[in-house]
Amino acid sequence: MDVIEEKIIKAGFILPSFSAPAGLYCPAIQTGNLVFTSGQLPLRDGKLTEPGGKGKVNDAGLEEAARVAKIALLNALAAVKSVAGTLDNIERIIKLTLYVASDSLFSSQHLVANGASSLLQEIFGEKGIHTRSAVGVAELPLGASLELELIVQLKDNSL
Amino acid sequence: MDVIEEKIIKAGFILPSFSAPAGLYCPAIQTGNLVFTSGQLPLRDGKLTEPGGKGKVNDAGLEEAARVAKIALLNALAAVKSVAGTLDNIERIIKLTLYVASDSLFSSQHLVANGASSLLQEIFGEKGIHTRSAVGVAELPLGASLELELIVQLKDNSL
Amino acid sequence: MDVIEEKIIKAGFILPSFSAPAGLYCPAIQTGNLVFTSGQLPLRDGKLTEPGGKGKVNDAGLEEAARVAKIALLNALAAVKSVAGTLDNIERIIKLTLYVASDSLFSSQHLVANGASSLLQEIFGEKGIHTRSAVGVAELPLGASLELELIVQLKDNSL
Repeated sequence: MDVIEEKIIKAGFILPSFSAPAGLYCPAIQTGNLVFTSGQLPLRDGKLTEPGGKGKVNDAGLEEAARVAKIALLNALAAVKSVAGTLDNIERIIKLTLYVASDSLFSSQHLVANGASSLLQEIFGEKGIHTRSAVGVAELPLGASLELELIVQLKDNSL
Repeated sequence: MDVIEEKIIKAGFILPSFSAPAGLYCPAIQTGNLVFTSGQLPLRDGKLTEPGGKGKVNDAGLEEAARVAKIALLNALAAVKSVAGTLDNIERIIKLTLYVASDSLFSSQHLVANGASSLLQEIFGEKGIHTRSAVGVAELPLGASLELELIVQLKDNSL
Repeated sequence: MDVIEEKIIKAGFILPSFSAPAGLYCPAIQTGNLVFTSGQLPLRDGKLTEPGGKGKVNDAGLEEAARVAKIALLNALAAVKSVAGTLDNIERIIKLTLYVASDSLFSSQHLVANGASSLLQEIFGEKGIHTRSAVGVAELPLGASLELELIVQLKDNSL
């Protein structure tokens, strides 16, 4: 099994299989040695049924939202895999952008993002240390609580 | 005439001529074979007079907003042309980010984005299938209803 | 002294020294000849004590917010320096994204952004003319009034 997917399992998660949307846009694109992903919602099997996956985040829901950020991250990694073949081809995580649907006065978007950032570090080690922007937005598609996108760099020998 | 601009006309639109803002920032920059655009408002002749071009989007205004997204997209393509010479030099649309000024509880930002995504596919075919993030923001410059930015990859032989 | 840092001083500012967060993410990463920064808040010595550094921006606070955008920009440039060695290695500023925590009906995010854009031009001249997106978001980490990120291109001979 791939090294990185094993680490995802050791962290208590499973990389979802990605059924690319047959449609107007795609989950990820490689350009040069960079991969850009689409913004990923915390969907499981195409649904926002995850506790904390819908609605606006506030202080009471912080811990749940940080967990939900991991789900969106796994979807983003599955998107990367769809073009990179295997996550073992990742040289480094370059950028993580997290949009958090935020209740008025909720100002801990960075702590929600820590849910995803800590999982990246657990899975990828040094290569998982990324740049990051976390902002609180008004509304997200389907009423999702958050949306996450990645830019990653692939290993030169994987191109 | 350029192939892509002909397709824009067949789709019922016209690529606006772009008068670069003489100022502090610019409509697009090429770095390597990528072009980044500034966030584009749905301006026509420099004004937000388009129906649905101003104010927050809600379910009742969804269809209009999806049409307005096409206007912002054409402005972004005009920005790309300002550095690429011709849209025929585009190898692929890499990323589309759409910020939609959203009424409370409006959660169809992805359907607004489909307005732009479907026009990209109509114009560029396979090369127009991109990654995408669509989020609902609180407010936008000049009270615009949406703001759209692109990252595109140019053909190697056009550099 | 470095040329660009001298220009920052001539503009009336000082480039902050950057103590990289020991943690889950980092201030900036170089990939190829591009540097991506994390979203930067208008922190001074790690605190949001700057007037106008916290809370939502409205028309009355516009001028203050434009000044605060310069603080966030200097933090972003310090982040770039942390990987580029010196700001003199910057070939061009590619992209500036500014998220402004916005009061209802505040629609001058672009004028807030002008604070950062004009400082870039003052410091870098032609090389400081960038692409830009400015959007009004609901909430930001720590209650900050704005968050700013950069993509810059380094000189080839600095790689």
